[in-house]
Amino acid sequence: MKHNFGAGPCILPQEVFQEASQAILNFNDTGLSILEISHRSKEFEAVVAETERLVRELLAVPQGYSILFLQGGASMQFAMVPLNLLPEGGKAAYLDTGTWASKAIKEAKKVGDVAVVASSADANYNYIPKAYGIPVDAAYFHYTSNNTIFGTEIFETPISTAPLVCDMSSDILSRKINVADYGLIYAGAQKNMGPAGVTLVIVKDDLLGKTGRTLPTIFDYQPHIAAGSMYNTPPVFSIYVSMLNLRWLKSKGGVEVIEQENIIKARTLYDEIDRNPLFRGTAVPEDRSRMNVTFVMEDKVHEDAFLALAKERGLVGLKGHRSVGGFRASIYNALSITGVNALVDAMQEFEEKNK
Amino acid sequence: MKHNFGAGPCILPQEVFQEASQAILNFNDTGLSILEISHRSKEFEAVVAETERLVRELLAVPQGYSILFLQGGASMQFAMVPLNLLPEGGKAAYLDTGTWASKAIKEAKKVGDVAVVASSADANYNYIPKAYGIPVDAAYFHYTSNNTIFGTEIFETPISTAPLVCDMSSDILSRKINVADYGLIYAGAQKNMGPAGVTLVIVKDDLLGKTGRTLPTIFDYQPHIAAGSMYNTPPVFSIYVSMLNLRWLKSKGGVEVIEQENIIKARTLYDEIDRNPLFRGTAVPEDRSRMNVTFVMEDKVHEDAFLALAKERGLVGLKGHRSVGGFRASIYNALSITGVNALVDAMQEFEEKNK
Ligand SMILES: Cc1ncc(COP(=O)(O)O)c(C=O)c1O
Ligand SMILES: Cc1ncc(COP(=O)(O)O)c(C=O)c1O
Ligand SMILES: [Mg+2]
Ligand SMILES: [Mg+2]
Ligand SMILES: [Mg+2]
Ligand SMILES: [Mg+2]
Repeated sequence: MKHNFGAGPCILPQEVFQEASQAILNFNDTGLSILEISHRSKEFEAVVAETERLVRELLAVPQGYSILFLQGGASMQFAMVPLNLLPEGGKAAYLDTGTWASKAIKEAKKVGDVAVVASSADANYNYIPKAYGIPVDAAYFHYTSNNTIFGTEIFETPISTAPLVCDMSSDILSRKINVADYGLIYAGAQKNMGPAGVTLVIVKDDLLGKTGRTLPTIFDYQPHIAAGSMYNTPPVFSIYVSMLNLRWLKSKGGVEVIEQENIIKARTLYDEIDRNPLFRGTAVPEDRSRMNVTFVMEDKVHEDAFLALAKERGLVGLKGHRSVGGFRASIYNALSITGVNALVDAMQEFEEKNK
Repeated sequence: MKHNFGAGPCILPQEVFQEASQAILNFNDTGLSILEISHRSKEFEAVVAETERLVRELLAVPQGYSILFLQGGASMQFAMVPLNLLPEGGKAAYLDTGTWASKAIKEAKKVGDVAVVASSADANYNYIPKAYGIPVDAAYFHYTSNNTIFGTEIFETPISTAPLVCDMSSDILSRKINVADYGLIYAGAQKNMGPAGVTLVIVKDDLLGKTGRTLPTIFDYQPHIAAGSMYNTPPVFSIYVSMLNLRWLKSKGGVEVIEQENIIKARTLYDEIDRNPLFRGTAVPEDRSRMNVTFVMEDKVHEDAFLALAKERGLVGLKGHRSVGGFRASIYNALSITGVNALVDAMQEFEEKNK
């Protein structure tokens, strides 16, 4: 039994793997593999419709918002957002809280004028800047709700008169959000939604079609909306597995139930990091992420030994990103409290051994 | 036992389904699912490297060409090709042989000046135009080697001083090609290469970086090349299944062997269409596709009855595209001669019954 703490693509529920594996041999008793059916078949249209319904239900998406399943990853959204929402001659505001936020900024700058309202680059992104102003003439304000690499998370929705655009790649579906607060939400699926290969976009329809820009069709949200995410061949299997995963989340009781579990998992792990004299968290306590727990050892020389012990205990994917070092425990929805407890046990065992 | 004649996503070998199904439960004895491993893991890096090696070997790709696995489908290439290859103020030449060719033209026109050298729209694309000139100042000449919807195929590489760019989505890996004749080749994987969700691009390196255009990173071939198709999270599973399918093709003897099988399959089916007084091919005989065989009944009233009989015999995916009507039998690499014979048997059975 392994516990997979990898940052993404990442753990999904075992029952999702079981059912996906079966559908590759025989999908829905069609006698065909899910990999060989037409995306225009009624069977696959039902999959897309159910996936969309589940997103709408689990996140309580209100009327007036479209839901899209696109290719290209969250990185493609770094470009699509300004191409679709930033009018010629307009300005966009961005908050810089990490690697992904700054890549989004870099892409937006190619499209138009960008105001970076604040940045925590000065402290290797170990906190969330809080005192900043958003230019009143901004077409939108973009932020990254969870900083996968640096282990910080923004729990309070920023106050902004400009429409909010949020990269929720690594915390979507982990906690309640109020979609009506946002103009656009996007997320690469490969954390809490599904496997790699599909990206979720939730967009308020009345923001679109106002830039005056002629876009390649594939980069324009509107034709994708008009075609129900079938403008061209969608990533069939990634959408199907996302549907299975969303069904699982619903059967668990939905986002509110998983949020309580996620709070307990995160508290359990941070408590041990704080208590255990060998370990130390890297993010400031008030901005600690519930999804990606970043920590180091007070004495770096022990880090390889701890990773080795963790591996022996079946705990994998714990090596920290090179920008932070140490460890990163990604404790997404599908990583159970059992997995967290096993990690805590390993930390205590290591402490004992090194007394 | 079903025979899947669908146009794409389409049939892949049963042994590919078996192995993919297994890898979802336990990939390479890692104790992890292929869906939960990091794209930066050494295990997945080995998958990408092998997939690239197999493409290089099976298509004899020469030095000086890069191989990419991208998201977005062939439709994204309709835009990326002119964005990357058409200089500001330059001109591109296109051949219009069907729905996909004309979509490529539409996207190129958004980027720059386009000369459509010839079109067979006048006869519902049932033939390949042959007498045309390519402007000497064209930055490239784009054509579609196999017209999936209309059932025509271009077997002779056009003569052009401009670099050739070819959409090979529906006949890549079905027959020998000389990659050195091309500047760029692209193909949505979901016919002969693998499942939906990944797109193959083979590009001559020295054509790139010459347009003077600033591109969003995700639309620029060069960063994808520099990152070995890992600029951002790739479509892990679609690449993995493509690797399995390429291994299968290699184990069969490669492209030259499959080409002979494809010739026999196509001849068998067209011979029956020609012989059988109830059926008639829609494409002119000299341009008939070996991949997508389009045909109708002399008497349209029988078409539903024939489809019903075919279905009883386990022959699925035969309904023709609405632009052509009748039937389309897609006989890609993985569709065996047994499948073709079963279709011929059904045609003869129907003929008997309707004597
Ligand atoms: C917060 C965040 N945004 C964007 C990305 C980039 O996603 P993709 O690889 O799908 O382009 C990631 C990837 O981990 C991420 O964590
Ligand atoms: C020849 C050809 N080009 C392009 C496409 C579009 O591919 P995609 O759906 O991957 O964008 C298709 C789809 O069937 C095709 O057959
Ligand atoms: Mg980050
Ligand atoms: Mg401590
Ligand atoms: Mg066509
Ligand atoms: Mg006939």
